[in-house]
Amino acid sequence: MTTDRRFPVRLDLRHGTVDMSHGAGGRAMAQLIAEVFQAHLDNDLLRQGNDQALFTPPPGRLVMSTDGHVVSPLFFPGGDIGCLSVHGTINDVAMAGARPLYLAAGFILEEGFALQDLVRIVVSMAAAANAAGVPVVTGDTKVVERGKGDGVFITTTGVGVVPAGVTISGDLARPGDAILVSGSLGDHGVAVLSRRENLGFEVKIASDTAALHGLVAAMVAAVPDLHCLRDPTRGGLATTLNELAHQSGVGMRIRESAIPVHPAVAAACELLGLDPLYVANEGKLIAICPAARAAELLAVMRAHPLGAAASLIGEVVADPHRFVQMETAFGGSRIVDWLAGEQLPRIC
Amino acid sequence: MTTDRRFPVRLDLRHGTVDMSHGAGGRAMAQLIAEVFQAHLDNDLLRQGNDQALFTPPPGRLVMSTDGHVVSPLFFPGGDIGCLSVHGTINDVAMAGARPLYLAAGFILEEGFALQDLVRIVVSMAAAANAAGVPVVTGDTKVVERGKGDGVFITTTGVGVVPAGVTISGDLARPGDAILVSGSLGDHGVAVLSRRENLGFEVKIASDTAALHGLVAAMVAAVPDLHCLRDPTRGGLATTLNELAHQSGVGMRIRESAIPVHPAVAAACELLGLDPLYVANEGKLIAICPAARAAELLAVMRAHPLGAAASLIGEVVADPHRFVQMETAFGGSRIVDWLAGEQLPRIC
Repeated sequence: MTTDRRFPVRLDLRHGTVDMSHGAGGRAMAQLIAEVFQAHLDNDLLRQGNDQALFTPPPGRLVMSTDGHVVSPLFFPGGDIGCLSVHGTINDVAMAGARPLYLAAGFILEEGFALQDLVRIVVSMAAAANAAGVPVVTGDTKVVERGKGDGVFITTTGVGVVPAGVTISGDLARPGDAILVSGSLGDHGVAVLSRRENLGFEVKIASDTAALHGLVAAMVAAVPDLHCLRDPTRGGLATTLNELAHQSGVGMRIRESAIPVHPAVAAACELLGLDPLYVANEGKLIAICPAARAAELLAVMRAHPLGAAASLIGEVVADPHRFVQMETAFGGSRIVDWLAGEQLPRIC
Repeated sequence: MTTDRRFPVRLDLRHGTVDMSHGAGGRAMAQLIAEVFQAHLDNDLLRQGNDQALFTPPPGRLVMSTDGHVVSPLFFPGGDIGCLSVHGTINDVAMAGARPLYLAAGFILEEGFALQDLVRIVVSMAAAANAAGVPVVTGDTKVVERGKGDGVFITTTGVGVVPAGVTISGDLARPGDAILVSGSLGDHGVAVLSRRENLGFEVKIASDTAALHGLVAAMVAAVPDLHCLRDPTRGGLATTLNELAHQSGVGMRIRESAIPVHPAVAAACELLGLDPLYVANEGKLIAICPAARAAELLAVMRAHPLGAAASLIGEVVADPHRFVQMETAFGGSRIVDWLAGEQLPRIC
């Protein structure tokens, strides 16, 4: 970075902390933006330096999605709030079958937050954005007094372009359709909880946080008549299936034995009294497609690194009650309801 | 709203409060979204009910802008965080000369926040979005524990389309250009501060919070070769002019006598030890255009209700130091520097 005559003294990124002046709109905020955000997230659009980013998207349908991130703790096995805030919004955009184009990021910082931690988070965001090929092109910074926030909250918003001929929506599940998941469930929630509670699990469980747009692109290219995609984040697989059943006015039947859960996650859930079906994921997706396309879709998913453990877990059925029912490992059947109450607060 | 079998008992919007389950992704969150957010912000795109909104923008260049809102108090003379979060982002989009199309809204709620206040804020957002013709098409809700937030923070993101032939950017100010402001300065900051400090100003001062895209559209139509537009929010006129001078590599000369400030605001600023040039505005803009177009631009601005008190306040000059200088009311000259430190925290 070149020297900027506005800032004769560089920020002390090793020992410094966020203070109220960093959100006041003046010289201190300009310096924080230059030496922390622009220094790491640098790209042509961000460098425009205006209060908005200008770009020409490809013609066609766009999607926009926004997601606030308040995960606690900020750093957890397998990730942190920085990469999570990039992956989470890329995934919400991708779940329309879209190719994510750009991200915006709004930071709400708490007075006293260590600049060293902020830099670590921004570096993680930049790495995630670069790896995904989806740059952060505009942003905003606010600061609240000590005790009025919690370190940092990051709200990211993404836009993406939907390929011609693709129409994916939560209301398109039809009786007979196949239900697939892209991999094992519960990793993110258990990883965050293990750090929060200082649980020393013998087997380390890492968050699955990942950007799924590459997997989605492969799926959409092979099976453009995919009906639904959704990432089972807060509320887990159980709640997401209930959302889709409600939106589409259908029921679902799933098989417990077909649902992938890492043994370590299953053991941790048993210890903690959690049901992995309700635990959050940040790098998994649910897909619903015509039964005749299920085998092909499953093969495409398994051929992608982020879908290697994909599984066909059940099918959509006609049901005016819109129930999600599960055939248990013991051969019985039970209703899998929406998450009620709070299982794991501030998981993302 | 029709009865939803998922929610046998309606939320108690009079006496209820936000609890952690409202951010957990399950049934309680779905109910909060249905009975508070969708109930008031309702539109076709939001009703899609997916994690992202799908739309087809007009062809051409788009802009995206994001803004977190942490104003304290949440309700102030002339507005509240709800309408402010709509106006703020519409204005950031409009400052590229763009026509705002859609908004996304991310809420971070504090456990214990009164649902009655949340509804009041969402109703205000809806009214502002409807009046502006810019709907909120997607959103997100998170909840943090008591003492980890401050009632509600709202991050809004907007997209808009830039008319063909219009190129407005902070780096386009050229020596000789005219500098105009659309009206009186300091109203928003003083209105918020008066409520925060419970100052009983005899003359009530109201925030100027307003959506400026209609004014911008008229200006761009009349003077498409406008060089710069920016809204002087945090840091006020002084800081925004310094930003533009820095970006364009120019100096500026302004005349204090030409800068409109309401007498009540000037008096309040004197009482509080504030300089109105550094106080935030939420319904004003600065425009920079070729000198030959200044008279026409001023006439167009004055013909619009939000520009009735518009004024030509100075001109751009060549200056390698990029100083903003002001001819004072007493005939002297002084340098108007960037805001240093924090004058008014959490003003937006």
